[in-house]
Amino acid sequence: MKLMRVTNPQVVLELIQEHFQPLAAETATLDRAGGRVLAGTVRAGEDLPGFDRSTVDGYAVIARDSFGAQEGLPAVFEYAGEILMGRAAPAMERGRCFLIHTGGMLPEGADAVIMLEDTEVLENQVHVFRQAAPGENVIHRGEDLCKGETALGPGTLLRAPEIGLLAALGAGEVKVYRKPLMGLLSSGDELVPYKTGILPQGKIRDSNSPSLAYLGVKYGAQVLVNDILSDSYPLFLEKSRDLLSKVDFLVFSGGSSVGTRDFTARTMQALGDPGLLVEGISVKPGKPTLLANCSGKPVLGLPGHPISALMIFSVFGAAIMERLSGREPRRYHPAVQAILTRNLPSRSGRTDYVRVKLEQDSGKILAVPVFGRSGMLRTFTEAGGFLIIPEEKEGLLEGETVEVFTWE
Amino acid sequence: MKLMRVTNPQVVLELIQEHFQPLAAETATLDRAGGRVLAGTVRAGEDLPGFDRSTVDGYAVIARDSFGAQEGLPAVFEYAGEILMGRAAPAMERGRCFLIHTGGMLPEGADAVIMLEDTEVLENQVHVFRQAAPGENVIHRGEDLCKGETALGPGTLLRAPEIGLLAALGAGEVKVYRKPLMGLLSSGDELVPYKTGILPQGKIRDSNSPSLAYLGVKYGAQVLVNDILSDSYPLFLEKSRDLLSKVDFLVFSGGSSVGTRDFTARTMQALGDPGLLVEGISVKPGKPTLLANCSGKPVLGLPGHPISALMIFSVFGAAIMERLSGREPRRYHPAVQAILTRNLPSRSGRTDYVRVKLEQDSGKILAVPVFGRSGMLRTFTEAGGFLIIPEEKEGLLEGETVEVFTWE
Repeated sequence: MKLMRVTNPQVVLELIQEHFQPLAAETATLDRAGGRVLAGTVRAGEDLPGFDRSTVDGYAVIARDSFGAQEGLPAVFEYAGEILMGRAAPAMERGRCFLIHTGGMLPEGADAVIMLEDTEVLENQVHVFRQAAPGENVIHRGEDLCKGETALGPGTLLRAPEIGLLAALGAGEVKVYRKPLMGLLSSGDELVPYKTGILPQGKIRDSNSPSLAYLGVKYGAQVLVNDILSDSYPLFLEKSRDLLSKVDFLVFSGGSSVGTRDFTARTMQALGDPGLLVEGISVKPGKPTLLANCSGKPVLGLPGHPISALMIFSVFGAAIMERLSGREPRRYHPAVQAILTRNLPSRSGRTDYVRVKLEQDSGKILAVPVFGRSGMLRTFTEAGGFLIIPEEKEGLLEGETVEVFTWE
Repeated sequence: MKLMRVTNPQVVLELIQEHFQPLAAETATLDRAGGRVLAGTVRAGEDLPGFDRSTVDGYAVIARDSFGAQEGLPAVFEYAGEILMGRAAPAMERGRCFLIHTGGMLPEGADAVIMLEDTEVLENQVHVFRQAAPGENVIHRGEDLCKGETALGPGTLLRAPEIGLLAALGAGEVKVYRKPLMGLLSSGDELVPYKTGILPQGKIRDSNSPSLAYLGVKYGAQVLVNDILSDSYPLFLEKSRDLLSKVDFLVFSGGSSVGTRDFTARTMQALGDPGLLVEGISVKPGKPTLLANCSGKPVLGLPGHPISALMIFSVFGAAIMERLSGREPRRYHPAVQAILTRNLPSRSGRTDYVRVKLEQDSGKILAVPVFGRSGMLRTFTEAGGFLIIPEEKEGLLEGETVEVFTWE
C-alpha cells in the first residue's frame, strides 16, 4: 500500500501564499465594498477635516482671552451669537465668544472651545470659569489627513472604520480585488442530493455541498455548486475541467475512500501544471487532503467525512480565499480562553484539531472535549469550537488554559 | 444644564433582552439559511446514518472470525467481493470478507471492519493480522441520531455544522426568524451625502451612513438608508415615524450636539410607548447614546462622532440585532490575548472602550493603545480592535495581559 506523503500545515499555508495570487482588481461602489480588500492606494483628495471643528458643545474663543480664568474669577466674554451647523462661521474678535456645537466650524481667529459646563450665561455675557489652552477642544483642519496623504493602502480589509474613512473622503467607488468564484464538486456513488426525501438503500445525502457553500460565501466567495458526480474518472475529469474553466478556485468534496482519492489526485494532476502540491496534511482530522495548483488556480480536495471537510476548509479553504481576495494573511486569530476539563493525548508530529464545547462553571470558562467519530454531525453541532494541539506537543493536560476558536 | 442620567452597559443589554422580542418565523430554503437562527425544533425523520457504515477502508468481517489473529498468526478469510458505494450490501457468511470503502454499507451480519493496513491479499484469500472487536470501525445505524430525536432546537444559530446536519436529514427548508429590516436615518445641517465631490463651506460628508449600513448587514439586517435630514424637529418626527412604520429597528445617526440630541430624544419619546429607556450609557466613548422602545420596536440614537457611533453600534446595535434575530445572547466573545504596552488610567464607574493596535514583538502579541480624538477616523482604521476597561477598575497597567476584540 502506498504511504501518504504528508505536509506540515504551516508549510501548506506557505505554499498557498507562494503559488496563488490575488485576483484582478475591479471597481466597487462604496456601499458594496465592505468586507472586500482594497487593491490600490487611496489618498486624501482634500484636508480632513476641511476646517477647524469643535469637539464639544461650548463657546468658541481666542484662548488667550481666557487666561487666568478660574472658579470665582471668571473671564467675561461678550456673546456674539450661535454658529449654525453647516454654515461658514463668522469672523472672531477679541473678547467675544460664539456658542458652538460639537462638529461646528470655528470662526476665523478662534483657537479654542470652552465646554458649556465651565460657563455661565448672564444676559449678553458669558462667564468662563476655566482657562483654555490654544487648540483645546478643537480638531484642526487636516489633523486627521492632509491633502495627498495616504489614507489606506492595498491589501487593507474594508471594515466599518475603513468604510467610514473612505466615505469621509468622498470615495464613492474604490478599487478592490475581485470576489473569488468558487466551484464546488461533490462526488461519490453513495451520494444523492440533500433534498432527496426517501433515501434509496445504501445512499446518503450530500451534506457537504450546502455547508461548504455557506462557508465559501462567508469567506467572501460566490459559489457555483455542481451536480453530484458518480465515481467515474473520465466523467470526473471532464466535468472538473469544465467547472475549473469557469471558476477561480475549485473544491472537491467526497472521494475520501482510497479508490476515489486516487482518481481525484489523478484529476488534479491532469487539470494543469504544476499540479499536485500536497498529497496529505499532518493534521487530524483531515489528513487525506489534496491541494493542487492547476495553471495558477487552486484546487482543494477535501476528505469526504463531513467534519474533516469542514475543519480543513475552515483552515486551508479560508487561507486560499484570503489569498485570492488580496488580503494579508491574518496574524491574529481571536479565541476564547478556557480551561481544559480532561487530558488530551496526541501524537507528536501531528497537529490535532479537537472539538470542544464551552461551558461556564462559577465564573470560569471550561473547554469540554466532544468526542464522536468524524462522520457524526450531531457532536459537531454541539461543539462551540475547536482547540489546536500543536505538532510539537504530545497532548494537553487537564486544567491547562487553552485557546478555543469558535465556529460561527 | 440638565445632567445626563446614565445607565450601566450591562443593564442596557438586559433592557434589550427584556423589551424586545424575536421577529416572526418564516421558511427559508437550506441554501439560504446559513447565519440565521432556527425558530423551531427539528427532529430526525429517520435514523442517521440510515445503515451501518464503515469508517475506514478495509474488509468487512464478522468480528469473532478474527479473534486471536495477530502478526505472524493471521486469520484467513475468503474474499467475497467488493461492496460498491451506494449499493445495498450483499449478505455475510462466516469466514468470508468483503472489501469495503469508507462510508460503505456493511453487509447484513458483518459487525466490524479491519483496516487495509492490517491485511494482506493472497490470491482469493485475505490474511488479517489483527483481531477486531465487534463494532470496530463501524458507525451504527442511528448512532448519530435516532428517528424522532431532536436534532436542533429553537434559538440555534445555523453555522456550517448545523447546515450539514440539516442537509444530512434532508431538510430542504427550515423555519428561521425573519431577518430584521433596519432603518438608518442621519441628521445634521452640516451633513451632505458622502458622494458629494466638492464640500461647501462648513459641511462634512455623512460617513456614518455607509459604515453603519455595512455593520447592519454584517449583523444580519437588511438596511434601508434614508436621506439626510436637516435639524428640524417637525420634519424629523414625520420622517422618523414614516421610516419606523416600515422597519423593525430604527437607528438615528448624528445629532450628538446638545440641541439635536434633545429633539432626537423628544422624537423617540413621541414615536410610541413606553418610549425612552436609556438616556445615556456609562461608557467612553459613546456616553450620549439613546435607546427607546417605541411600541415594541427598538430605536437607537447614536452619538454623531464616527468612532463613538461605530463602537456603540458594534456593542448595543449588535445586541439588538441578535435579539430580533432570535439568537441566544452570546456568552463567549473571542478575543486576542495581548500585552498592554502602557498604563491606561480610567475613571471608576465608567466602562472604557480603548482602541488598540496589535503588534508582534519576539513572539509576543502587544496591544498598543491608539489615541486620537473621537472624530478622527484614521486612527480608528489603524486600530485592529479594542479592549475594555471595566467600570470597577481604575485603569490597566503596562504589562497586563488584556483581551482585544477585533473589528472585522
